[in-house]
Amino acid sequence: MIITSEIISFFLETRQHTEEICAPLETEDYVVQPIEDVSPPKWHLGHTTWFFEEFILKPLKPNYTLFNKDFAFVFNSYYEAAGKRVVRSNRGNLSRPTVSQIYEYRDYVTQHLVELMEEGITKEIYTLAELGIHHEKQHQELLLTDIKYILGHNPLLPKYSETFDENCIEHIPEKWIAIEEGIYKIGHKGKSFCYDNELGRHKVFVPNFEIRNTLISNEEYLEFINDDGYKTVSLWHADGWNWINENTINSPEYWHNVGNDWLYYTLNGLVEIDKNAPVTHISYYEAFAFAQWKGMRLPTEFEWEIAQEKFKWGLRWEWTESAYLPYPNYHKPEGAIGEYNGKFMVNQKVLRGGSVATPKKHTRPTYRNFFQPHLRWQYTGIRLVK
Amino acid sequence: MIITSEIISFFLETRQHTEEICAPLETEDYVVQPIEDVSPPKWHLGHTTWFFEEFILKPLKPNYTLFNKDFAFVFNSYYEAAGKRVVRSNRGNLSRPTVSQIYEYRDYVTQHLVELMEEGITKEIYTLAELGIHHEKQHQELLLTDIKYILGHNPLLPKYSETFDENCIEHIPEKWIAIEEGIYKIGHKGKSFCYDNELGRHKVFVPNFEIRNTLISNEEYLEFINDDGYKTVSLWHADGWNWINENTINSPEYWHNVGNDWLYYTLNGLVEIDKNAPVTHISYYEAFAFAQWKGMRLPTEFEWEIAQEKFKWGLRWEWTESAYLPYPNYHKPEGAIGEYNGKFMVNQKVLRGGSVATPKKHTRPTYRNFFQPHLRWQYTGIRLVK
Amino acid sequence: MIITSEIISFFLETRQHTEEICAPLETEDYVVQPIEDVSPPKWHLGHTTWFFEEFILKPLKPNYTLFNKDFAFVFNSYYEAAGKRVVRSNRGNLSRPTVSQIYEYRDYVTQHLVELMEEGITKEIYTLAELGIHHEKQHQELLLTDIKYILGHNPLLPKYSETFDENCIEHIPEKWIAIEEGIYKIGHKGKSFCYDNELGRHKVFVPNFEIRNTLISNEEYLEFINDDGYKTVSLWHADGWNWINENTINSPEYWHNVGNDWLYYTLNGLVEIDKNAPVTHISYYEAFAFAQWKGMRLPTEFEWEIAQEKFKWGLRWEWTESAYLPYPNYHKPEGAIGEYNGKFMVNQKVLRGGSVATPKKHTRPTYRNFFQPHLRWQYTGIRLVK
Amino acid sequence: MIITSEIISFFLETRQHTEEICAPLETEDYVVQPIEDVSPPKWHLGHTTWFFEEFILKPLKPNYTLFNKDFAFVFNSYYEAAGKRVVRSNRGNLSRPTVSQIYEYRDYVTQHLVELMEEGITKEIYTLAELGIHHEKQHQELLLTDIKYILGHNPLLPKYSETFDENCIEHIPEKWIAIEEGIYKIGHKGKSFCYDNELGRHKVFVPNFEIRNTLISNEEYLEFINDDGYKTVSLWHADGWNWINENTINSPEYWHNVGNDWLYYTLNGLVEIDKNAPVTHISYYEAFAFAQWKGMRLPTEFEWEIAQEKFKWGLRWEWTESAYLPYPNYHKPEGAIGEYNGKFMVNQKVLRGGSVATPKKHTRPTYRNFFQPHLRWQYTGIRLVK
Repeated sequence: MIITSEIISFFLETRQHTEEICAPLETEDYVVQPIEDVSPPKWHLGHTTWFFEEFILKPLKPNYTLFNKDFAFVFNSYYEAAGKRVVRSNRGNLSRPTVSQIYEYRDYVTQHLVELMEEGITKEIYTLAELGIHHEKQHQELLLTDIKYILGHNPLLPKYSETFDENCIEHIPEKWIAIEEGIYKIGHKGKSFCYDNELGRHKVFVPNFEIRNTLISNEEYLEFINDDGYKTVSLWHADGWNWINENTINSPEYWHNVGNDWLYYTLNGLVEIDKNAPVTHISYYEAFAFAQWKGMRLPTEFEWEIAQEKFKWGLRWEWTESAYLPYPNYHKPEGAIGEYNGKFMVNQKVLRGGSVATPKKHTRPTYRNFFQPHLRWQYTGIRLVK
Repeated sequence: MIITSEIISFFLETRQHTEEICAPLETEDYVVQPIEDVSPPKWHLGHTTWFFEEFILKPLKPNYTLFNKDFAFVFNSYYEAAGKRVVRSNRGNLSRPTVSQIYEYRDYVTQHLVELMEEGITKEIYTLAELGIHHEKQHQELLLTDIKYILGHNPLLPKYSETFDENCIEHIPEKWIAIEEGIYKIGHKGKSFCYDNELGRHKVFVPNFEIRNTLISNEEYLEFINDDGYKTVSLWHADGWNWINENTINSPEYWHNVGNDWLYYTLNGLVEIDKNAPVTHISYYEAFAFAQWKGMRLPTEFEWEIAQEKFKWGLRWEWTESAYLPYPNYHKPEGAIGEYNGKFMVNQKVLRGGSVATPKKHTRPTYRNFFQPHLRWQYTGIRLVK
Repeated sequence: MIITSEIISFFLETRQHTEEICAPLETEDYVVQPIEDVSPPKWHLGHTTWFFEEFILKPLKPNYTLFNKDFAFVFNSYYEAAGKRVVRSNRGNLSRPTVSQIYEYRDYVTQHLVELMEEGITKEIYTLAELGIHHEKQHQELLLTDIKYILGHNPLLPKYSETFDENCIEHIPEKWIAIEEGIYKIGHKGKSFCYDNELGRHKVFVPNFEIRNTLISNEEYLEFINDDGYKTVSLWHADGWNWINENTINSPEYWHNVGNDWLYYTLNGLVEIDKNAPVTHISYYEAFAFAQWKGMRLPTEFEWEIAQEKFKWGLRWEWTESAYLPYPNYHKPEGAIGEYNGKFMVNQKVLRGGSVATPKKHTRPTYRNFFQPHLRWQYTGIRLVK
Repeated sequence: MIITSEIISFFLETRQHTEEICAPLETEDYVVQPIEDVSPPKWHLGHTTWFFEEFILKPLKPNYTLFNKDFAFVFNSYYEAAGKRVVRSNRGNLSRPTVSQIYEYRDYVTQHLVELMEEGITKEIYTLAELGIHHEKQHQELLLTDIKYILGHNPLLPKYSETFDENCIEHIPEKWIAIEEGIYKIGHKGKSFCYDNELGRHKVFVPNFEIRNTLISNEEYLEFINDDGYKTVSLWHADGWNWINENTINSPEYWHNVGNDWLYYTLNGLVEIDKNAPVTHISYYEAFAFAQWKGMRLPTEFEWEIAQEKFKWGLRWEWTESAYLPYPNYHKPEGAIGEYNGKFMVNQKVLRGGSVATPKKHTRPTYRNFFQPHLRWQYTGIRLVK
């Protein structure tokens, strides 16, 4: 049974939280796109709003008038079925619509969606609204990591906050959790919300393995650096070796070698590395090379899912060895919504867990995050298996 | 004799005019850089200010405190001798300093320079202040053309103004002015301000020629388009032909073919082409191909300078056939100021005249503007010689 | 027990077969490298020879003198541990060593290796020689596909042969083979030769599936083309869609649309498409889109290995849905030989089977071939699962 | 009056000399194209032949049968009016036609042209044949410089010859030649052969100048290197500074710093730098920076032409400060031949003189060679003016 007030509250809380994330920004911070992977904050504000307008209000609200007919062109991300759009690398070249116009757009769409839901929520509206809410939560995480990139690559290194704790120290002794071989069930169970890529719960045979209860710390990662990890070709994939050499990479993103010290840009500004904190902002290539150096390996996503009850997680997105592929019997939803996940199932690695930037109620044990193996601007981390 | 009050007034008027140009902008418009040639308006505001601070206040004002020691890194354009700087293509990725901080920076520097000048103007201060003022005037023109690019390439095509007249219709009958062959003197004469590249007045032999009293109109340029000018290889330089094909160019910048009509984006928004207005926003390659099509040619910069008294100019920057080269006995000034002009004297063409965007008291008959042959975002135009 | 005469015969046959493949070439055909993935035939001849010299003769043959000390630089492919090398994209810029010098080099190394083996084969020599032979067989296949690319992209479309049959028509009725769910063992069994990436035989749970006994034919693929398969975005991965659009791809490699007919460049020259032949020279992206269009999918590499006894294979390299990843307990060999397979286990898809270009005794049911998803110059093909 | 036997002899000598230049090559050397500016020798052989076939035999010889109708596609260089062609960067990817087929093509065309001329030479045939001969002579120079590039960038550094003297030591004492200001006539005089770009003899006013009788030597250039010339930004154009930094340039092309010595690759192989020889293989950017460092400048092409009688030249192509522009009243010939020179008159600098690679009877005092300012693979050199 759908409880209208619950979904409306969930919707409104989510919409509000997005705006809270942006509250510390200057107007100028909303506009820029320093690399293609990072979108301008104002684009996220508009895009999450367009999603509700395009997929719910436009088809389902009688007599709905678009806020601005040109906004679909500006705020569509990648939905080919939903028409033409600004090319991704061009998002940071658009000064208009202004930030205040986009906030008006948000209010307009929020209000119309609440109206629609108050008039009576069908199954279809509910499903789409729930998807839209989770979509916006995904963008909340991107907002934080994109803001970090924008400020952290500005020569003035401005702070976003005074109190955002990125360190996430685990404060528990390291140990190895042994899991027995066997057939396990993988994928989402029950009726609660999940993405299409988690469905198709299915059996997998997994051999014996041991997985560490804690993430790799900065201290451990520094040992890898100091042992010439970035200069030892045998630890790296060929693609990874090319990538570190072409981009002159010798430490995680946001690390600055100043004199003999390593400093680290955080949302609270530049600080010293905390050796006890889990390392973060590393690519899959680096995670793999680190594991090689340890003589161990990364978990598969199945191992991770089987073992996750035994350790804490949600601090870092943990790179797995698994490629992002459809589960057996995966079915892409019909229409533009079908472009949400399925079309990315090639050339990416699965990450499991969640991070300090992941909003509440967003991640789950079966959640499959995915990124290309060279990307580092998310709060990624490393867990080992042996 | 240096009259202090005059130079101070000239300085203050110039500083104020820059801010008047920016008055219609939204904060977001100050930030973006859609192509490398276009700088964010806030960068122009900061850079023109940094020029006064770096070359006058820092070396010459006793006890001067820099407004912000990091700003030199952000606002240096290309002065290698003045230290490291943000790479040009990265200017649009910087949300900080904010627009309001830059306005504070402007006020701070303006006030300190007035103080310095009121305390007594040496020849050195005068010379540098005059250069700084003309430098800022150059950036006033760039501000307008960059704003036009930013708004004119936004999918919403917002207006900058309601009253900015770009058309510049000449309202005089076309005729051909004959100039006799002979030895002429070329270059700046007298003691008034000019750039180093205009000095070294020297003799040049020029054969007979006839030059048109009016610029090429949109109507004439449309005939070229309609006669397949953009598809006729024999009219083009090899580099020009590659350029139009690689960039799919078939009309001037800012022209939009809608149905059977040509519309034109101006600072007042999208309007119909006025057939009587001089064509603008064309590259040297297009100007050359047009002249070939007419069976004529572009003037050399010497011909232009000799003939300029006989026609009106200052509506469009007029492409000449001359390459941008040093005059005989050209001497580069010492130090960072020496980087102002000399180091660009290769791979560029000279433009003469001035444009609707050129500020008052800025251009002169001997003024040598220069751009690469493919650039179109300035108000360029065509005058023919036969 | 190692039988010396057998390994020597196997070695000599393989060396000779490589040269037979090159026999129809003109000297000029040995030299060029039209794209980075395709190497000049003379490079293959030298590289396969260098492999024996570098890994066997140099370390293991007493008093061995290198044929030419500079050849290691020229003929190393990607073994970082074996020193510097010519960058891959530069192979086609090298006119020297000449083809005849390389044939001398081949003879020299062949003779010395036979000598070494005749003097007594240790286990180490045997293992390395066997690897070197299989390595050369891999390059025999590449030689054929690279020659096809070189001649097939020459505007004169010269023939390589009169009698090379690429069609491989299966002549059996299509049917679906049902396989029951269960735990299966995957990976190489027994003591015969295999690559390191096939080892670590392990259990995998596989659900029920049905797999087709025949490959997809040109006729079926033409239906996909004619049904606008290349224009239907919902069938494609995002990366695949970008790839076909950026490269203007609308048919398999080597297909030429002439009038209303499709012609196909083969090693025997340009011929009409044979509708009954299995389609070939398609990328993973195209194989995937075709399967989507059929409402089916590609097999995983495990499904393929389990089912392979039931159908004929070895006509086309069959794209699987599996990413190229290490098997559980995969161990990279020590030293430069360890670079053979392991470092490529990211960003590639597994292909199973073999092709018309695969030399005899080279492929096996557990053989794991791998390529990036956009590559088409191998004889790739499509088998479906439902 | 046209003397048939003379033009036929001149033609045959030229054809033969081209083949003599290629005589020392291996077949493989004819094929490769290590950079876009360098064409494969076999392409030069075919292209010079195609020029005679396309512009003389095809239109003017009755019943002439093309040697091979596909060759126009392969051997057209840049004549848009003469149809489609292989893109320039693709010339080194073509193994066919083979070298021996191209020699057959040469013989076929040579023979047919001699036949045509023996039957009676019209003015039109004479003019085109003379142009074709000089065109082939230009390619003779390119053949030598392209062969040098191909062999000089091969890791084996093979020799082309034992006796090719590149040094060209002048053996005369350095002095400065003073030329008085005045009006001078510039451009080709008389009826002998010249290119269209030398015509339009015209008056130019030239101020007083002094020009050096000798070229800059390796010894002088080494002083510039040792005085950190390549690290002193104020000596360079902005484009030149970017070019040396992006390409890590710190010496002329073909120089190798080995230990404390400079070695130099010549057509005779690697030798020590001869300090007395004129420096060569430097770009315009380097020539300009060297002149700046000396406190002098490069000559204009007019100064060079006026002064050339007073010094020896023909050792190096001497960079001038002049941009490559049309002379007053320059007229492009009609048709495809009109593409010979005119369409390159932008973005290039003029070089005067000739070089050790220039064939006999090819250069003249009014000859205008031209290249882009960064190119170095020709035998370029430096003469100074003060």
